[in-house]
Amino acid sequence: MTEFGFIEKIRDMFASIPAGDFEGIGDDCAVLPINDDEALLFTADALCEGVHFLCDATTAFEIGAKSAAVNLSDIAAMGARPIATLLSLSLPQNAIGEWAEEFMRGYRSVSERYGVTLAGGDTTCSKSEIYISVTAIGRAKLSHIKRRSAAQVGDTIMVGGTLGESAIGLRDILAGNYSTAAAHTHRNPTAQILEGEWLGQQECVHAMMDLSDGLASDLQHILDLSHVGAIIDTERIPAADTDTRNAVCGGEDYKLLFTVEADAAEALACRFKEQFGYDIHAIGTITANALHSIVWHENGEPVTHDDWGGFLHF
Amino acid sequence: MTEFGFIEKIRDMFASIPAGDFEGIGDDCAVLPINDDEALLFTADALCEGVHFLCDATTAFEIGAKSAAVNLSDIAAMGARPIATLLSLSLPQNAIGEWAEEFMRGYRSVSERYGVTLAGGDTTCSKSEIYISVTAIGRAKLSHIKRRSAAQVGDTIMVGGTLGESAIGLRDILAGNYSTAAAHTHRNPTAQILEGEWLGQQECVHAMMDLSDGLASDLQHILDLSHVGAIIDTERIPAADTDTRNAVCGGEDYKLLFTVEADAAEALACRFKEQFGYDIHAIGTITANALHSIVWHENGEPVTHDDWGGFLHF
Repeated sequence: MTEFGFIEKIRDMFASIPAGDFEGIGDDCAVLPINDDEALLFTADALCEGVHFLCDATTAFEIGAKSAAVNLSDIAAMGARPIATLLSLSLPQNAIGEWAEEFMRGYRSVSERYGVTLAGGDTTCSKSEIYISVTAIGRAKLSHIKRRSAAQVGDTIMVGGTLGESAIGLRDILAGNYSTAAAHTHRNPTAQILEGEWLGQQECVHAMMDLSDGLASDLQHILDLSHVGAIIDTERIPAADTDTRNAVCGGEDYKLLFTVEADAAEALACRFKEQFGYDIHAIGTITANALHSIVWHENGEPVTHDDWGGFLHF
Repeated sequence: MTEFGFIEKIRDMFASIPAGDFEGIGDDCAVLPINDDEALLFTADALCEGVHFLCDATTAFEIGAKSAAVNLSDIAAMGARPIATLLSLSLPQNAIGEWAEEFMRGYRSVSERYGVTLAGGDTTCSKSEIYISVTAIGRAKLSHIKRRSAAQVGDTIMVGGTLGESAIGLRDILAGNYSTAAAHTHRNPTAQILEGEWLGQQECVHAMMDLSDGLASDLQHILDLSHVGAIIDTERIPAADTDTRNAVCGGEDYKLLFTVEADAAEALACRFKEQFGYDIHAIGTITANALHSIVWHENGEPVTHDDWGGFLHF
């Protein structure tokens, strides 16, 4: 069974329990409206030693910072402002003490940068590995929330920055090259937190999510939930190196992926650059497509890339 | 460093980040008022294979049910109604499939009983052990929330049921006796979810929490935060066996511990029994005590029990 198969099964099992005021389950975050104007958003993510990080290759500070960043990224990916996290930290004996404190300093650095309080959590022993689980809470005006299901035919598909560097960094780390620039980026992802909240306020932005499993896999979620297709001009993908496959299939870039009203895309890119000092990139178009599939183009012509799947956690 | 020492250190590190509207950090739950009348409550807890449970001694269904129950218990312990959970599940290869599905059936059974939706979460691989982290979300009227800091001098101290059976069950399990009644109770704790919400509505109830680390350890949190002391009449403790130490020091009973206006305690016990069909028990009195300590009494006379410490996770 794949990760997504299991998630589907869980969704079916719990479908008969009323969701109360919750909506958006299955998006980056669950959404709970708290009045006519505002909602809280919730997301949870786990990191396991030996699967998501190697203690030899990454400092405790970096793991702490990344644990916070990737969760805040999910909040920002819906156009919301992160306000709090809860942290469950399970530590084997050898990580209690210095490692744990360094981890917390990293976690704190990201929390402080975005003014996010630590609202609770749990610390326990574990038998052999470090295990980290973070729940992030965000807040947004209901009208600012960007859902995966909101892409519209004709929208321009945009990404918030260069893709694939994290995948190259992971490859370097697995080969024992811990000190490359890409390896550093992999260990220290810069989530687009302020950018996500800003894009949430832009009416011309329709669907949004963050790229954690790779463009090919993540864009598919938008297509499935919005009942649309996509053409991606592969030569326009801002790839970190000459092998576009890393940019399309590599995980953990934590850049924003969003669709924008075609007429407004160019002006949005200008205003974004004014605000944040760097470029966002148009890479394709949302299409009417009953198969909800991605069609890859190269210089205007369709090409097939059967091996461009996404990243699966298991 | 102990668990509580580490938690203290984390609290200090994060003190300078503004908590926004959050309050109650350090109680069973963090509290976020959402309007003049109501708040949301948040809590997170982790369970690790080999530390909190043994797969040989416990079914996947039981672990799933317990993972939900202990988190809902924290919500109920503040007088609130649980409305949702987020679940992070990290599984080694041999737990993907049958084990995971059985786990989810157990998790669902408790979620369904209390009408609690699964609002999100994460499923990932782990290298060798099963890790479970749950965040629970509750909702309550602000006036119904019971804090650890609200005990008043003269209050009657009450517990929601028999104590110590879970500790006896754990002892049985560690000795390889998996089929005793106590072992069953340890694996299948009945958290007082509806009872907690009901007690939240009673104005005469002042402080409340759930007993997860043992009476001696948990009551101390109420005393420290309320700046009071306590006299406990040990012969009135509803102990599951003749060794009171299990009832006082044993963890994971998940019974409610609360303080009640002395005049109202007897009537409250009657109304509780009418509502739920079983007894709550008065075991002592909140006192003015500058040391915030517990004084153990036996037949009206103070006795010392230097070895009655609580349960520490590390």
